[in-house]
Amino acid sequence: MIKFTKMHGIGNSYIYINCFEEEVFNPSKMSEFVSDPHFGIGSDGLVLIMPSETADFKMRIFNADGSEAEMCGNATRCVGKYVYDNGLTKKTDITLETNSGIKDLELDVIDGEVVSVTVGMGKAELEPQKIPVSIDGDRVIGYPISVMDKEYEITAVSMGNPHAVIFMDDIDSLELEKVGPLFENHELFPERINTEFIKVIDEDTLQMRVWERGSGETWACGTGACAAVVAAVLNGYCKHDREITVKLRGGNLKITYLQDGTVIKKGPATFICEGEVEVPPIAR
Amino acid sequence: MIKFTKMHGIGNSYIYINCFEEEVFNPSKMSEFVSDPHFGIGSDGLVLIMPSETADFKMRIFNADGSEAEMCGNATRCVGKYVYDNGLTKKTDITLETNSGIKDLELDVIDGEVVSVTVGMGKAELEPQKIPVSIDGDRVIGYPISVMDKEYEITAVSMGNPHAVIFMDDIDSLELEKVGPLFENHELFPERINTEFIKVIDEDTLQMRVWERGSGETWACGTGACAAVVAAVLNGYCKHDREITVKLRGGNLKITYLQDGTVIKKGPATFICEGEVEVPPIAR
Repeated sequence: MIKFTKMHGIGNSYIYINCFEEEVFNPSKMSEFVSDPHFGIGSDGLVLIMPSETADFKMRIFNADGSEAEMCGNATRCVGKYVYDNGLTKKTDITLETNSGIKDLELDVIDGEVVSVTVGMGKAELEPQKIPVSIDGDRVIGYPISVMDKEYEITAVSMGNPHAVIFMDDIDSLELEKVGPLFENHELFPERINTEFIKVIDEDTLQMRVWERGSGETWACGTGACAAVVAAVLNGYCKHDREITVKLRGGNLKITYLQDGTVIKKGPATFICEGEVEVPPIAR
Repeated sequence: MIKFTKMHGIGNSYIYINCFEEEVFNPSKMSEFVSDPHFGIGSDGLVLIMPSETADFKMRIFNADGSEAEMCGNATRCVGKYVYDNGLTKKTDITLETNSGIKDLELDVIDGEVVSVTVGMGKAELEPQKIPVSIDGDRVIGYPISVMDKEYEITAVSMGNPHAVIFMDDIDSLELEKVGPLFENHELFPERINTEFIKVIDEDTLQMRVWERGSGETWACGTGACAAVVAAVLNGYCKHDREITVKLRGGNLKITYLQDGTVIKKGPATFICEGEVEVPPIAR
């Protein structure tokens, strides 16, 4: 039996294994096993919490199909919660080594437990060639493109991955499964794109639905929420240096777009359950 | 925190709560919560294991949408495993009160743990009016019906719920999502129907795919496996009083159709994990 903890960040759930105590020899197979709600536990994947030589802790994250992922903001926050709540650290500012670099985590503790975590997301990239978007100029703000005979205005932002942000009054009735793939595979986006559909509630609040490249509509996309706030500032809906609440289907994130171009994201990390799982020998 | 165990029977997984130790005030809400793989654990529903006044134990079973179910063979077997493995009984023949009557369970124990459970399924009903099927006569065996311009021969059996069984050489390439609904809603079946597509491997082995009324294709349908064996005997593919292995997508069941019309089903019960879950106050 292997000890596990299940946690979620706005509905994005993973099985967390404390590799200071447990050994996992085949994380890819184990992720497939634990993620399956029929024969395993049920999750979006597996996260290993490990010692690091360059930071306080290291994480490796695997998708439900067994492939290793680079990063996931929701999982990053849950790792912060795990190491503090389980006494692996007493610090509330920790560094975490991931496959896409070292992240700085700031933990908010209430009654001895982490309830939310703030993570620096780096600088937003606005240069079209670097996003990449096949549009001339040095920024793409409110650029008109036509999809299914309707015109949409996109603002393009990279948060390490490419995003097209669209502001609309009505996002609830949007048929995302129809228009999403047409944006994703549009000729303007050589590496395809994540598309965020944003309703501006007020200057501190955005509501968002997202079509993720390769995944379809999801309940939560942290980099998408960051891109949405960057785009909202660029379009004059929101201001720099203010904490903007982004309401996603799975919960809320709080994003700040600093004057220097850096983006900071704060969000919840939620414990679901912990226990022991019987892992078949093939998935160890 | 509430203690839970997750188990599955051929891929049909539930969260089991020992109500000799734990109190669940709102099982419907709790089933919705624990079944959700994003915010809860992930399962097909919730099963409460309780004291009974008329049998050794009592179970109540709730679907993932919070509705209470009558019975589920896969869950019944797991209850047998739970009460023995956790020392609630030392007997290997136990009675279990369910919303559809008292079931007799026979537990197979290896190394102190239950690995499979045999449950009496009652008598197969073959009278068309009682199944119900709108066809004259006293049995429906190999009756031709036309679906999407193709002719299929159905054998109709009720195991408490209605089944149409069809024998075919190639069930792997069958487009079940297309033909399934046409059988389910065919005018011959006033209460709709579950449809089993069976390949006869040999006289002791059947392979099955199933389209369940209201659910679509599922990986496991215990009453469907029983109906398949009854139909196989009626059509001369298998014999009475022999244990027939039915291979479903989620695993194998062993079904015996006795000369007196009674059906006996044996299948695995598999432990996945156990632990403690933090249930939100609204779902207690």
